[in-house]
Amino acid sequence: MDHVFFMNRAYQEAIKAFDEGEVPVGAVIEKDGIIIGKGYNRVENLFDATAHAEIIAISAASSKLSDWRLSGCNLYVTTEPCLMCLGALVLSRIDTIIYGAAEPRTGAIHSHFYRQQIESSFGYFPKVINGIMEFECGSLLSSFFKQIRQNGSTDTHK
Amino acid sequence: MDHVFFMNRAYQEAIKAFDEGEVPVGAVIEKDGIIIGKGYNRVENLFDATAHAEIIAISAASSKLSDWRLSGCNLYVTTEPCLMCLGALVLSRIDTIIYGAAEPRTGAIHSHFYRQQIESSFGYFPKVINGIMEFECGSLLSSFFKQIRQNGSTDTHK
Repeated sequence: MDHVFFMNRAYQEAIKAFDEGEVPVGAVIEKDGIIIGKGYNRVENLFDATAHAEIIAISAASSKLSDWRLSGCNLYVTTEPCLMCLGALVLSRIDTIIYGAAEPRTGAIHSHFYRQQIESSFGYFPKVINGIMEFECGSLLSSFFKQIRQNGSTDTHK
Repeated sequence: MDHVFFMNRAYQEAIKAFDEGEVPVGAVIEKDGIIIGKGYNRVENLFDATAHAEIIAISAASSKLSDWRLSGCNLYVTTEPCLMCLGALVLSRIDTIIYGAAEPRTGAIHSHFYRQQIESSFGYFPKVINGIMEFECGSLLSSFFKQIRQNGSTDTHK
């Protein structure tokens, strides 16, 4: 599987968020080499704290499959998912989470606490691959936050 | 604030889920004594693992306020929220989570691990009140799962 190809598609989604003034995070869900769902962060424009790229991509992929179970599917996301999105990915039984840039503050994937608790509660934790297009995904976020600081905005979500 | 009044409204939402063959969980969000969002579990019928009562109620309340920030709002839900929903409630900055029945396996609210991690990452954790209409909310769940077992269904979500 060409991780860079699919991460690049997630990156294109993140660009859409950037252009709409949202924290630039994008995601796609792939099954058997085909993208079956995609999304980008729309928290500010949809007035909805749950409108993260991953949640939108999960809903789209599930709708496409007419099944909430996404086993056999892989999620590509430009930034390490937060707790809400990790929970959603576990519930949807996605096979693999592939992400670009680490999110040291709110990223939930590499917390041993979360992993232990989730494995204990659900008997399951998706496989994880990180660092795909890490520099590009991280730079997009840095550019966004630099711009926000220059404009004096505060309280941006995610 | 009359917790039983609002929990009863959440319970009415859970009944809708029950009648549609979904795991019976319902939620309402209250602000200044008025219900501004409600939802019930629709995972099976919407083909969407993220379609928990709390997520639907958060989206509805945020849309009503035209603001993803739900500070000053309280969530009533018939069952202890899972990890995804706890994450969503933290992100939306809800004031208080009031729930009915505990969910020992996948409930995330009373895990000290989650609380510590969330407080450390977000500097915030909602206030929690539990046990409101506990018997009624728990009985509704028990009745549902008893019915599921009698019908031989498996793999029901949440």
